[in-house]
Amino acid sequence: MPVSSPYRLVDIDHALHTILAHSPLLPVESVSLAAALGRVLAADVAAPVNVPPFPAAAKDGYAVIAADTSRRRQVLGEQMAGRVGDLTVVPGAAVQITTGAAIPPGADAVIMVEQTTPQGDWVEIESAVAAGNEIRPVGEDIAAGEALLPAGATLGPAEIGLLAAVGLAQAPVYRRPRVAILSTGDELREPGEALLPGQIYDSNRFSLAAAVAQAGGAPAPVGIAIDSSAALGQALLAALADHDALLTSGGVSMGKLDLLKPILEAHGQVHFGRVMMKPGKPVTFATVQGKPIFALPGFPVSALVSFELFVRPALRQMQGDRGWRRPRLQVTLAHDLEHDAHRTEYQRAAIYVEAGRFLARSTGHQGSGRLLSMVGANALLELPPGSGHLSAGSVVSALLLQAIGD
Amino acid sequence: MPVSSPYRLVDIDHALHTILAHSPLLPVESVSLAAALGRVLAADVAAPVNVPPFPAAAKDGYAVIAADTSRRRQVLGEQMAGRVGDLTVVPGAAVQITTGAAIPPGADAVIMVEQTTPQGDWVEIESAVAAGNEIRPVGEDIAAGEALLPAGATLGPAEIGLLAAVGLAQAPVYRRPRVAILSTGDELREPGEALLPGQIYDSNRFSLAAAVAQAGGAPAPVGIAIDSSAALGQALLAALADHDALLTSGGVSMGKLDLLKPILEAHGQVHFGRVMMKPGKPVTFATVQGKPIFALPGFPVSALVSFELFVRPALRQMQGDRGWRRPRLQVTLAHDLEHDAHRTEYQRAAIYVEAGRFLARSTGHQGSGRLLSMVGANALLELPPGSGHLSAGSVVSALLLQAIGD
Repeated sequence: MPVSSPYRLVDIDHALHTILAHSPLLPVESVSLAAALGRVLAADVAAPVNVPPFPAAAKDGYAVIAADTSRRRQVLGEQMAGRVGDLTVVPGAAVQITTGAAIPPGADAVIMVEQTTPQGDWVEIESAVAAGNEIRPVGEDIAAGEALLPAGATLGPAEIGLLAAVGLAQAPVYRRPRVAILSTGDELREPGEALLPGQIYDSNRFSLAAAVAQAGGAPAPVGIAIDSSAALGQALLAALADHDALLTSGGVSMGKLDLLKPILEAHGQVHFGRVMMKPGKPVTFATVQGKPIFALPGFPVSALVSFELFVRPALRQMQGDRGWRRPRLQVTLAHDLEHDAHRTEYQRAAIYVEAGRFLARSTGHQGSGRLLSMVGANALLELPPGSGHLSAGSVVSALLLQAIGD
Repeated sequence: MPVSSPYRLVDIDHALHTILAHSPLLPVESVSLAAALGRVLAADVAAPVNVPPFPAAAKDGYAVIAADTSRRRQVLGEQMAGRVGDLTVVPGAAVQITTGAAIPPGADAVIMVEQTTPQGDWVEIESAVAAGNEIRPVGEDIAAGEALLPAGATLGPAEIGLLAAVGLAQAPVYRRPRVAILSTGDELREPGEALLPGQIYDSNRFSLAAAVAQAGGAPAPVGIAIDSSAALGQALLAALADHDALLTSGGVSMGKLDLLKPILEAHGQVHFGRVMMKPGKPVTFATVQGKPIFALPGFPVSALVSFELFVRPALRQMQGDRGWRRPRLQVTLAHDLEHDAHRTEYQRAAIYVEAGRFLARSTGHQGSGRLLSMVGANALLELPPGSGHLSAGSVVSALLLQAIGD
């Protein structure tokens, strides 16, 4: 009887669902705003204060009484932003004021400086204004109590600015997943060293570390484990001690030296060991000590595509992101495409807009070792099983990896 | 005569062109692959080696002679990845081989393990294969001398993996711009402190630092400068000594205390002091000691929008990115929109796909202090001067800030 894998081929949705069910939310920590970029908020935030907290001048100019009809007014002094004066505006008078300064008592409007002509201690007013003119009322930008950001929001520049604007110096966020990254294989050599016969350079540890960082995790490359059960088991347990998840590449297909699955079985539970997809069929997912372990294939493209489909969602969920799904678009093939007739295939493509339509062009030879096929790709085409041939003009689903446009 | 600005209103394209002409490319440095994510390559990279460097097994199985017709073959031993054996395949024989291992002398094909039945020291072969079957020829993934990445490429996971795969441990990249960030204004208070009357919290320093980091720069918040010429001038010169660019917010409109422009004039050259746009009209650009200084308005939305339009392109260009432009799309308004009739207005919007069209929905009240209008926005609508009213269904241009989809 031919050799066959003891692992059932599971479908992609089942695999993702299983992974998400075993990727626990990490603890909450407090970070300063300077360290908050890209972090995910762990609690709803409402505004503790009004912004502005006082009626403020929206422009540089003069604080006046709107109903006052005097063309020339006496300038009583200056009210500057951040300084509190003791000036009160009365009919026939005005107070010079700078943007952001509190409106002095008595005044109910600001006339912008461009509509005035200063004359010594007096100012000539060009035109009448309504009460409230160029005054930012209390809470105009943000009202005290207003909901600002929901738990699960990823903090970008605007969100961080909002927290600062209401006086919050710290934000409660989920911890970033600390991800140990282990390459396996006796044939792997460090870049920068000379290759011996039979050796190749390890690339997955570097590409996966970058992918982990892009997904908001803290990558910790822990080296290359050689192909021995003892070495692998030891490396695995050591990595788990200090990290929230473990990412391996290589060592999961069917050879005699693909030792990883038995070791995972020995120390924990293997949830699946093969997925009905291309590339990425040998993707294996296990938990050991309650922590997720992603054993990715060794071919560089297989490793990155399966990272994108399975690991990134888990890492985003672990750090509290509820909207981790990549956007999907329907796109039109710019040319004929051959694909796998039996497994869903993820092909790398460049999506562009032409005459209001999304067109997809392949990035070339899609071999699972050919990393060049990922360069210039802004999407993965999801090609379901079928005849194995799609004609130019066919509409397929694409998983967007970055913004597209002209 | 009414007070007016001495600075000519320039148009947006002129402003951007001027900025780019004064944003010099930074020096080149070498970084390790672990530190290369997001950096911009400073030289074309061609492959110094073939990948794979030897004919390699694409699958686990048996190395055989394709023309051999024996159904049962004697297994001479194992050829494992990374190890060099002394086995030679002869007719009637096979060598067990693992994925990635060098094909032993004599063999010209690999039969995958799933098509075999092992029987002690023998293996039964299910079906014949052609020469070259499951063998990855030398240079299949990357051919020595092949162009891999051009200067100007931004290094993501795949690009970093490519460099590693050909043995390069370091990459030549442009230095990240070190950007000093200074807030100005006596009214500004640090988040976490208590507000005194007339004070508000500084938010720009935090939002702009995050925006600089997102643009690939190294932000260095250098504090709040109070509204005095001496303090501002000193802060400016100190910041320039250690940084490649300076970003200020506030202090550029027309009030008596808007001191920044005269100080910039005194120490260098102000290239423009007002731009025909909304928000962001007071945006000022100067060079001092050959370094770019961006003096942004103080209102939080004005600061972030003008960062996006003017500072991000400069920072990307300084670090060698030739493709720094945000993608633009034509989008359809989902509802009526009021906008500025005289200046191009940038309104924050959420773009989504519906029935194959891009629709744009405003993020609400567009006040230049209202940071909430940037939350949930994935695009800036570019609304040219006109009637000031656009009806639902109108098609406008949108600058994409992130990927969009369903």
